[in-house]
This record gives sequence, structure tokens and C-alpha cells, in this order.
Amino acid sequence: MMESKQFFIHNIHDFVGQTVIVKGWVYNLRSSGSLIFLQLRDGTGFVQTTVIKSEVPKTVFDKAKKITLETSVIIRGIIRADKRSPSGFELTVKDLIIVSLSEDYPIGKKEHGPDFLLTHRHLWLRSRKQWAIQRIRNVIIYSIYSHLEKEGFIKIDAPILTPNACEGTTTLFPVPYLPAWKDPTKPPSMRVSLPDGEIKKEEPYAFLSQSGQLYIEAAIFSHGKVFDFGPTFRAEKSKTRRHLTEFWMMDAEMAFSEHKDNMKAQEKLIIAVVQQVLDKCAKELEIIGRDVKPLEKILKGGFPVITHKEAIEIVRKEGIAIGKRDDFGAESETILSNKFDKPLFIEKYPKEVKAFYMKEDPDDTSRVLNDDLIAPEGYGEIIGGSQREDSYERLLQRMKELNYSIADYEWYLDLRKYGSVPHSGYGIGLERLVAWICKLDHLRESIPFPRMMERFNP
Amino acid sequence: MMESKQFFIHNIHDFVGQTVIVKGWVYNLRSSGSLIFLQLRDGTGFVQTTVIKSEVPKTVFDKAKKITLETSVIIRGIIRADKRSPSGFELTVKDLIIVSLSEDYPIGKKEHGPDFLLTHRHLWLRSRKQWAIQRIRNVIIYSIYSHLEKEGFIKIDAPILTPNACEGTTTLFPVPYLPAWKDPTKPPSMRVSLPDGEIKKEEPYAFLSQSGQLYIEAAIFSHGKVFDFGPTFRAEKSKTRRHLTEFWMMDAEMAFSEHKDNMKAQEKLIIAVVQQVLDKCAKELEIIGRDVKPLEKILKGGFPVITHKEAIEIVRKEGIAIGKRDDFGAESETILSNKFDKPLFIEKYPKEVKAFYMKEDPDDTSRVLNDDLIAPEGYGEIIGGSQREDSYERLLQRMKELNYSIADYEWYLDLRKYGSVPHSGYGIGLERLVAWICKLDHLRESIPFPRMMERFNP
Repeated sequence: MMESKQFFIHNIHDFVGQTVIVKGWVYNLRSSGSLIFLQLRDGTGFVQTTVIKSEVPKTVFDKAKKITLETSVIIRGIIRADKRSPSGFELTVKDLIIVSLSEDYPIGKKEHGPDFLLTHRHLWLRSRKQWAIQRIRNVIIYSIYSHLEKEGFIKIDAPILTPNACEGTTTLFPVPYLPAWKDPTKPPSMRVSLPDGEIKKEEPYAFLSQSGQLYIEAAIFSHGKVFDFGPTFRAEKSKTRRHLTEFWMMDAEMAFSEHKDNMKAQEKLIIAVVQQVLDKCAKELEIIGRDVKPLEKILKGGFPVITHKEAIEIVRKEGIAIGKRDDFGAESETILSNKFDKPLFIEKYPKEVKAFYMKEDPDDTSRVLNDDLIAPEGYGEIIGGSQREDSYERLLQRMKELNYSIADYEWYLDLRKYGSVPHSGYGIGLERLVAWICKLDHLRESIPFPRMMERFNP
Repeated sequence: MMESKQFFIHNIHDFVGQTVIVKGWVYNLRSSGSLIFLQLRDGTGFVQTTVIKSEVPKTVFDKAKKITLETSVIIRGIIRADKRSPSGFELTVKDLIIVSLSEDYPIGKKEHGPDFLLTHRHLWLRSRKQWAIQRIRNVIIYSIYSHLEKEGFIKIDAPILTPNACEGTTTLFPVPYLPAWKDPTKPPSMRVSLPDGEIKKEEPYAFLSQSGQLYIEAAIFSHGKVFDFGPTFRAEKSKTRRHLTEFWMMDAEMAFSEHKDNMKAQEKLIIAVVQQVLDKCAKELEIIGRDVKPLEKILKGGFPVITHKEAIEIVRKEGIAIGKRDDFGAESETILSNKFDKPLFIEKYPKEVKAFYMKEDPDDTSRVLNDDLIAPEGYGEIIGGSQREDSYERLLQRMKELNYSIADYEWYLDLRKYGSVPHSGYGIGLERLVAWICKLDHLRESIPFPRMMERFNP
């Protein structure tokens, strides 16, 4: 059987009329006495294969009859163009090998609840929709790398085990660090900030990174334009469809770059990513039923920019009770997002609702030179960015106002002491980006193995 | 001043004779009365700039006199070809702006101990050598992505917070998971395996991932060829130059792939990476003084393959006391590595020194179909790979022999129940790869912010 050429389904159009071998899994099947239809998945795509009783030896037809859902097989057959088939092609089986019979595959055609599916995530990933989502996620990841490479960004991997909080202390994951296991005395390199009340203050803990930003800021002095792209952690005690405890973020940081440049860089990245997905994932977008028109609309750029102040007025007019200096909740973001058919920049938030490192707006020192980028179609924030405070004195003063432990941030303050420059950056949440581009109802399908408040397995 | 064109140093050859602006930091300086030499770094490279007293206004020369190490500046000047300069070019200053004066930069010309440098890692990254290493690391990362994209691999991000140990339980980092903070009862999704004696058994803990392999194995059934690339963690209680507690790994996994295919895939990747570094990092390799001949030698491939049995004989002949079925220590790896001028595959280790998931060698069931790839020049293991056990019964039996908690691995066993296929994969340690390619003495310089037994800051 092995004398024929192996092919992969995504190249099927190059093999019409040829006898080929394909290796994969049967994800669906039906038979009508003299015909057995095996829907095959090989990783690169899906194709219908047909076993015709009158055209194969009895042993082959008998093997085909034994095949069950998710059985792994090697099939030899002829590829034919077939307009009735959704893929436009079909494979007529000549011979087959059962690699491993799959008995009682637990995910069937019936509806399963989310808890069942999440417990079987290792199998659920095989479904057509989950296959398509992960393929799109993959193209998004590659497109971010290729865009940043073209723009001259250097990858600087920020550490995960850190002594500092980047985004507030209530969502920190503490990790008892090594010397704590052997020796209760703390070496000088183990000074830590502890979240209130959650863990014992006597033991040395590291924290799982909430963002690599502070670290990559250090690297702009060496490399100019840098980024990180890795997992980040927030011990979110809420179970909404927008929350994961572990998610991937790309942070970019640019020396000699100001607020407006920063927004331009963000727009350019989003356009590059969406362009790549549209170019490479037509099949996947069709499988998940994604209308591509709203995505095509954003390719021309010109994302609208409104101030926080203007945005507050808009949501108030829609009847939302929100203070003039409040941050936006999910409901407000949805309202704002639905007013525009492109991603929306909201800039210049009140400093008290944003992180300590953002630069004051010189035109209104109660606000900062930041931006949140709100995805269209109600998907909320996908990017948060800002120009960073580059004055040592103002940064120190801000940290004191907020009762930060200055000793823990001395290294970060050093960046303003030794050759400080205007600089800006942003962080993009991969799962929120995937959820928007795929138009998913819940973040949990955007990541291969989601971690949430009450789940960290399989 | 701003009317001139901004340029970046890596493009300097395109700007000879032109008046341009460059923004960066002064990393070295000297003066001789009427001349001030400012060595400038802009992220993309290094160039000498010269301020000539007789050719600039007094105010400009006075500003130049104030400049200290690591002061940030914007300089306008003319680019000249200059054979005496190491870069081949020089910039004659016409005007300059001091962006921020740097006072008493702590890293000077004198020698600093490793502890001092690690404590100042956020500044140490600015040194020429550290700049070059991180640039090479960056090219290695991009080259891995582009090679895998070309080969059709889909990125599947494995989770960091996990309930299982992949590589033995002695080096696990436990993380108290959320419900433990509020509620001592464990929901069913919180079953955990606990390392012995280190932490309290009553509390639910997740563990930081030691490898994403088990998870990406699940995804081959959906995507065929997959990889992850992220941080992994080992609570190593040793302080050798080869150990970090946090390091980056790329794991690749391939369906319908056997032991020999697996080694071929590894060789192909290593060649692609080294080729890219040689093509793109000539300047950086020169800065760190890396002799490129040993790297060029490996480009033709044909990496030697010896068995564990043969390798034992070689090191025994060199006087190493090692048991016939032992794993190799650092000393043995160095001996083996020095016998060959290409990376060396050692295959078919005794099963008792390798992980539970490796497939038995059908020719000797006391051994497994694995390979370790040993870098040349004494750098030890950079890749570990194996064909995976695809028989449900044999895998279950092996886990029982090793006293694994079967319930925790049911999801992993499912992969052998539903459509099992022969499959193989490997994991490559990014820092060890960087250390070898850059010929570093210690892993700590291979990663931006190293974490070791007694250090997790800055």
C-alpha cells in the first residue's frame, strides 16, 4: 500500500486524478449498505472519502465497516473533483489500514455543556470549530511576529517570576520561592511586595507576572524597539466570559516615541493581523461562520480617536449611570464599540483609574497620555497603551501617593535616572484579539487550555 | 534642528555625506581639549560621533562637555566614511540636544562581580556584549518561528498552571490556586499531585509547567504538526552555570512520525537557526568574539548518531566511572561533545533514566526510542526528543510501575484510547541554544532577566 505518494488535504487541488495516501482520523461517518462515507481530518483540512463495496476487495469493505468515530486510519485512494462535496473534492478509497480503533468516543453529535467540554478539552480541540479557531489563533501569532520583525522590534522575554506588581496587588498569584522551602531567612535579592491579607507575610514569595511591561521598558535603552509575548496571570475572582486567570499578552515598547506615535503603531499592527487572517484563513472563517465584512472594513485604517471625556458623554446619553472620572465597564464598552465600525481609541483617562507609570497629560495634569483600543462588535478592550512617565521626580511622587514600596521599584526608577527618554508602549491581549476576530461568545474557546477561577485542568 | 532626516545606525552606509539626526545614548566618551568623542548607541548599532570645538558654536561644545555616561541625546551631524573607526563610519556633530543627563551611572569601566551585575541587570543589558547576545537570541527566536511556519507547524500554547508533573516531582513550583484562598473544599477540577514533603497536602495547588509536551500531544490529533514556545519552570536546588529556575522551551510534536523522522526534524531546525544567525548577526558575533568556523561546520548536516551503549563505552575509555545504564553527567557530555565537530545524537537510553511517556525500543524493550542532541564545544544537551508510547496498555503499565496517580493523567491516556497514532516530538531549551551559539560561560547571560535558586529580581 505504501508505494503511493502521501499528500496533505490542504493541497488536495494539486492531486486530482492521482492515487495518493492520506493519514488521519475519521471525524464523522455514515453508511448506506453498499457505500461507506468516512469524513477524514488530517490536521491540514477535511475531506470526504467514500468506500464503494463493488469497487474494493471484501477485506477492505469489512475493515471500513468496523471504523468508529475518531479511529485513526491510513487510506489509499483516488482524488476526484466533486462539486457536491463542501470541499469540492472527494477521495474514492482503494485500500485502508486501521491504525487504532477508537471505542466510544465521548464527544458525540449531541449537545454538551461547557463543563463537560472543558473537562474534555484535550478531545474537544478536535472539533471542526475548535480546529478553525486554533488555526486562526496561530495565524494571528505568526502575523504579530512577522509584523514586529519587519518593524525592527527585538524580542525581550520578560520574566514570569517577579517581585513586583505591575497592575495592582489584588490579582497577584503568589509562588513560594525556593529558599523558603529550606531556609526561612531572606537573602537581599528576595525582597517582595505582598498582597493584603491573602498570604502569610513571613514567607518569601515571588509573583506570577501580570505584564512584562516594566521589564521591557528597561530594554529600550539597549535596543530601541522591543517586545515580549508570553503568558501573564491575574488571579481574577470573577467568572465572566471575559476573564481567564492565564492569558497571553504581547507588550511592545518604543524609545523616543510619544502618545500619537504609539496609537499609530497599534493601528498598524491590528491592520496587519486582520489582513493576514483574511488572506490565510478564508476556510477557517467560513467554518466558524464569521462574517468577514466587518473585518474588511478596518483594513483602510483611520481608527477614530475620542477622549475619555467625550466617551463618558456618549454613554451617559445612552442612560448609563457613570461618574465623570470613572473607568468604563463592559456595558459602556459595548455601547461605545457599537457606535463605530472600526476599532475605537479612547484616550486621556483620569490618572486615578490608570496605572502609576503613565505620563501626565501636559494639557490636563489630572489625566494621562494613554489609550484603550476598543474592538468593534462589542468586544471591549483589546489594547491598552500609554506614553510612560519619563520624569524621575514625577514618577517617584506618583508612587509615593499610591503608597508603593519604593525599594521594590528602585530598578524601575533607575530607568528615569540614567538616560531617560520619552517612550511609549502598549499591551495586546491575544485571547481578546482572537475572540473578536473569530467573534466568539466566550474567551475560553480562544486558548487551547483555558484556566479560570475554578479550573486548571486538564 | 529637527529639519534633518532621522536615521538609524544599522543603515549608516546609506547616509554617507548626508546631514542627519540620530537619537540615542552615550555609552562611552573621551575628550582632548578641542575634540570630544561621544560613542553613541541607538538600539540598532553603535557609532562614534565627534564634536570639534572649532566647527560648532560655543553653546554646542559646552553642552557636549557636560555629557556623562548613558546621557540620552539627539544629535545632528554629517556622516563620513572613516576607515580608522571600527564601524567604518563617523558622525561629525553640528548640533545636539541633551534629553536627560545621567549622573553617576553605576556600571563603569572597572570589573564588576556577577552579583553586582545581576542586581543591575536592567542596566547591564545596555553593555555591548549583552546587547549583542540579546540580538542573537532574538534572531534565534524569529528563526525558530519562521522555520516552523514553513514546515506547517501550528502554535498551540500549552498552559503554565497545570495539575500534572511532566518531568518528575522534585523540581515542581507549587502555586496556591484561587479557591484555596476563599474556600478549603476542592472542586473536582482541582485534583492535584503533590511533591513529597515540600508543601502542605491539605491545600489545592497548581504547578508551574515543566514542559508543555503532554498538552501539545493532545493537539496533534487536531492539527498534525504543532509546537509550543514559552517559559517553563524547574525548582532546581543547584547553583551551577547550567541551571535556571525559569527558562524558555520550544516543544514540537508530530503525528505519524517515528524516531528517525524526529531526529531529522531536529537536525533541520538546528541548521536553519544557525544559518539565520550567521546570515544576520555577523556584527553581533564579532562583538562577542565568537569564532564562527565551528558554527559553519554544522550547516552541511549529517549529525552523527550513536547509541547510549556506544556513548557509555566512549566515556568509560576516557576514565569516567559510569554505570552501563546511567544517564550522562556534565563531564561525560563534555567528553562526548568534544569527540565530534557537529551536534551529536545519542539515542536509545535505558528506560529507567528517561520519562514515562517514551516508546519502548522494539529491539530492546529495556530501552526507549529517544534522542538527546548534544551541542558541540562542550555545551551539553540542547534537545531532548523521543517517539512517544502510543499503546494505551503499555503506557498505563509504565505509569503504574512508576506509581503515578492515574486519575491525574486520565486525559493524557485518552490520547491513546481515541485514535492513537505513532508520534514523536522534541523539546529545545532556548537558553542552552543561545549559550552554545554565543559560546557563553554561563546561562545567566542568555536570558534578559535570569531567575536562579536565590534570585528572582530585579
